[in-house]
This record gives sequence, structure tokens and C-alpha cells, in this order.
Amino acid sequence: MSESFGFCERCGQGMSQRVPEGDNRLRRVCDACDHIAYENPKTVVGCLLEWQGKVLLCKRAIEPRSGYWTLPAGFMENGESTIAGAAREAWEEAMARSDDLSLFALYSLPRISQVYVMFQGTLRDGYACANEETSEVRLFDEADIPWQDIAFPVVTETLERWFERHDLRVPVVHCGDITNRPGEPLEILRHPS
Amino acid sequence: MSESFGFCERCGQGMSQRVPEGDNRLRRVCDACDHIAYENPKTVVGCLLEWQGKVLLCKRAIEPRSGYWTLPAGFMENGESTIAGAAREAWEEAMARSDDLSLFALYSLPRISQVYVMFQGTLRDGYACANEETSEVRLFDEADIPWQDIAFPVVTETLERWFERHDLRVPVVHCGDITNRPGEPLEILRHPS
Repeated sequence: MSESFGFCERCGQGMSQRVPEGDNRLRRVCDACDHIAYENPKTVVGCLLEWQGKVLLCKRAIEPRSGYWTLPAGFMENGESTIAGAAREAWEEAMARSDDLSLFALYSLPRISQVYVMFQGTLRDGYACANEETSEVRLFDEADIPWQDIAFPVVTETLERWFERHDLRVPVVHCGDITNRPGEPLEILRHPS
Repeated sequence: MSESFGFCERCGQGMSQRVPEGDNRLRRVCDACDHIAYENPKTVVGCLLEWQGKVLLCKRAIEPRSGYWTLPAGFMENGESTIAGAAREAWEEAMARSDDLSLFALYSLPRISQVYVMFQGTLRDGYACANEETSEVRLFDEADIPWQDIAFPVVTETLERWFERHDLRVPVVHCGDITNRPGEPLEILRHPS
């Protein structure tokens, strides 16, 4: 039985996998109309919100990593900017309003073809609330962060870099590539910025 | 005649447009198998390469904006990091090798649902070469940049910020949202970083 590469979104006929003319990568190409289904990395936008020195974390109510703690973050939508998407995710996942967002870190996750764009900012009025996506919200001091129960490596890395920021005299945006799976030891290639 | 929303990549049947349960946005949903075709912004990765104070620009040999000058940049591929993609684009568009890449700017283009991740670095050996995608490569001093013939607003913004960097005593990563079309006056909302 031959492998299936799905159907063409344009004409509905079967797709096969080949390197199109002038290209150098395997793509899904329509056998009938030659439409090429390009697949590209997805951008996840999120934020680290501070209130009186504490950081807002959300306990995930949905898979993957349900029950683990995370920063508000999710897939960027068409038609929005990264900063607007980060604010939207804070609202959708924690009913949180964010002020003074600024770019904090950019991480590539080539294993799962994702790019994380993380902002930092202030949690307005210190208010957040659980909902369908989040079973619990809490403000954590650095000493209380549940490091063993963080949902994703990129969240661990973001939190670690943020808590050390007070040692820095200049604003820095972090950049790196993360390659481990959730629950595995952090593997990161940090790039200078 | 009803509007067509294409076909399902999973089962090949027709799609319609509606808000899925638990969602708040219009998506393309399969009438037969309920598959949801999420569409998300694409990430463009590129770089500004310097050689002895001059900047490498490429004259585009392909549409859009054929004949206009640009920085090496293109769609990020699955399985690569942003920094690796930027180096790949420099090679593919200008046969250029890049050293010491570091993150320089992150721009959202919500009008066309793209995110630009721009790195800065050194052009190895000062070497670049035209090819299928690029009709001409050239190293420009700031005074010689063809500002009226730059392909895209995001390239203009990147070049302007880079040439003013010498006035800054600390490394800064720029972040903003660009909303004008190519050829129109630059419209940008710059975010603090």
C-alpha cells in the first residue's frame, strides 16, 4: 500500500511528495493541478507578566502537558502583530490585562517547527483568573517557582533568564534554539545578542 | 453561486467557513470530517551582512518587486532555527556566507500575516554572487544606499536602524509593526525594547 500525502486544498485530488522544479526540498504536490502545499513553522506568542516582583503562571487545563505550569502563550493568528497576540493570549488563558509589553526573547524549536516570541510586561491590577484553558492562576516569587512542574522547556528558559535580568545593566533580548522534549533536561544553543 | 472555501487536505471533501465550537474565529472546516484548516502567519528570516562598513544588498530577479534592492531573506523552513534560516537565505540568494550572526530586529506585518526575524552579521571574505533569485549583488556605503529602490518597507526600516546603531552604546533589538504596502510611505509602530 502506498503512503498517503493527503489531498489538495485547491482541487481536492490526491497529493504526492516530490521536489518541485527550482526547489531543493520535498514538498506535497498535487498530482492533478501541481499546487504545492508549503508547510512552514508556526509562531507562538506569549508573555511574562510581573506584579510586585511576582510572575504570573497558569496551570494548563488542556493537553499537551495538562496540569503543568506555563506562561500565557499560544499560536499567533493571521492579521495580528506579535505583541497584540501576546496580549490576546494573556487575556484568553488568564483573563489578564498586560501593560508595557516589550520584547524579551525569541526561541526556535526546530524539533517541532515552532518559533516562540516572548514579551515581558506588567500584570494590570495584579488580576488574573482561571477559565477553560487554565485550571489555576498564581503569582510566584522566584523562590516558589515549581521548576519540576513547568510545562515546556521554553518556559523554563524564559523564567530563568527573566529572574537573572536584575543583574544586567542594559536591556537584553535573548535568542536561542531549544531542542529537548518537555520533561527532558534543557538543551539550548544560546546565541549572542 | 456559493463561495468556495477549497477542499480538505485530510479527506478531499469540500470545506466551509464557520466558527468551530470552543473557538472565536472563522476557520475553514471540512463538511465531511470536521478537520479544521488553521492558517497562521509565516515567518521570514533574513540578515544584514556587513563587510568593511558596507552592507550587502541583492537586486531581486523574481516577483514580487523584481528589480528592487533587498536584504537576503525568505520563508523559514520546517525543522530549522531562525538563525540557520537566515544563513541559508544569504547563501541561496547571494551565495554569501555569514559569520557572527546575532538577532537584530523583529517586525510584524499584520497586513500580510508575516513576521520578519532579521539578524546582523559579517559577510565572510566580502564575497557574494548573483544567481537565479538575484540579478545583481553589491556592497553599499550608507551614502550610496538606493533608498528609493528598496523592495520592501521592512528592509528600509532595518537598514535605517542599522546605520544609526553606531550612536548607541548598548546592543538593542528592534521590535515593531509595519503596516504600509511596498512603495508607500513607511508606517511603523515601534515598540520599546
